[in-house]
Amino acid sequence: MTTKTLYLIPSNLSEAPVPGMLPPFLLDVILKTKYYFAEELRTSRRFISSLKLGIKIEGLQFYELNKKTSRTELKDILLSIPAEVEEIGVMSEAGCPGVADPGAKIVAIAHEQGWKVVPIPGPSSIILGLMGSGFNGQQFSFDGYLPINNEDRAKAMRKIEEDVNNKGTTHIFIETPFRNQIVLVELLKNLNPQTLLCLAINLTSDTESVVTKRVAVWKNNIPNIHKIPTIFLIGKSEAK
Amino acid sequence: MTTKTLYLIPSNLSEAPVPGMLPPFLLDVILKTKYYFAEELRTSRRFISSLKLGIKIEGLQFYELNKKTSRTELKDILLSIPAEVEEIGVMSEAGCPGVADPGAKIVAIAHEQGWKVVPIPGPSSIILGLMGSGFNGQQFSFDGYLPINNEDRAKAMRKIEEDVNNKGTTHIFIETPFRNQIVLVELLKNLNPQTLLCLAINLTSDTESVVTKRVAVWKNNIPNIHKIPTIFLIGKSEAK
Repeated sequence: MTTKTLYLIPSNLSEAPVPGMLPPFLLDVILKTKYYFAEELRTSRRFISSLKLGIKIEGLQFYELNKKTSRTELKDILLSIPAEVEEIGVMSEAGCPGVADPGAKIVAIAHEQGWKVVPIPGPSSIILGLMGSGFNGQQFSFDGYLPINNEDRAKAMRKIEEDVNNKGTTHIFIETPFRNQIVLVELLKNLNPQTLLCLAINLTSDTESVVTKRVAVWKNNIPNIHKIPTIFLIGKSEAK
Repeated sequence: MTTKTLYLIPSNLSEAPVPGMLPPFLLDVILKTKYYFAEELRTSRRFISSLKLGIKIEGLQFYELNKKTSRTELKDILLSIPAEVEEIGVMSEAGCPGVADPGAKIVAIAHEQGWKVVPIPGPSSIILGLMGSGFNGQQFSFDGYLPINNEDRAKAMRKIEEDVNNKGTTHIFIETPFRNQIVLVELLKNLNPQTLLCLAINLTSDTESVVTKRVAVWKNNIPNIHKIPTIFLIGKSEAK
């Protein structure tokens, strides 16, 4: 049996990205890969078409890999992939697979099988937000989603602020886009006016905005981020 | 005065990278930028030359920005940059500026000045390691460097292992390359045999290797990573 390589293939963050955000190596990998695990088949098919590489989408094989996909299902799919296939790709709905998406499941199985695992550089909203924030990048924590319940969320926000103040760790979190505005309003209500908040909005698109201000300053002019892709960061200024 | 844009420009992670790891947008930005903050001037000049874009390095202005550079020095440099200059770049010694390097200082000042801040996608060893590990990417922590003192380091390793087991948070850390082997040996000594350790070695180079195994299995065949760029990750398998 041929040794298989699992390529972790980032996709664009934005539906209308500024051109040229993906490295040529990623395109080379897509040109030779015919088997894909994807979080959303339609999104991944559309992404590959949008690259205009002359690939016939009908000739590709896609397997769904979402948060409900079990280990047994993945093992069954692996058994059905022909032995001679060398390249298998994994794609997230947007950005880097394996980061805040179910892609890590197939990576873990690939390691168990002794496959080669190749992560490809590409846009990561977490790293772009961190780079653009001006906060401490020596110690940072990605917290995923905050609790949905109002009281628990307020508690989580104050705990993050405490950790920023005590240890200087930068905290990064996300929210489902339709709750972004609520989370922003709650942040401005719960955090200390002097705390620095960075909003990284619509990354890699024409309308990208990465801005760090104190909570008191944000309060004077609250942006509308309802349903708009946003990364939230709380940290200490590195301009000492 | 023209509004300035601060571009955060990633560079290659490896001295001999596989070609095509940088996005075309990054090259477009370098073609129009003449003023740069760089962690190591020689590295950044060599990097721009290596891109073979026909840029005359003598025509570029470089300012050093290292961990000793103070806020006052940076402010003085800013005053000396001509008012009509629109593009200013920041480069790390390798990978993404502002992540585990001093680049964040100038980003923080840029926000204070109201400049536009544009992070550019590129290779980040932290994200590539996380993608390739097969560990939980919904919650992760980048811890920078572990303590140098043996006893403190062992304590830090066990604390990380505890957090992985209790909360499922993935931990990512680095070491200065000449201490990589010592850290690996200490990890294999201090961690539970069942704990999963991922070593992401020589990322984006021809000799790249991203492998996740249990500590007990690593012990049977300890790789030589002395002076070799490595990212260490400890986490829980997502193949459940």
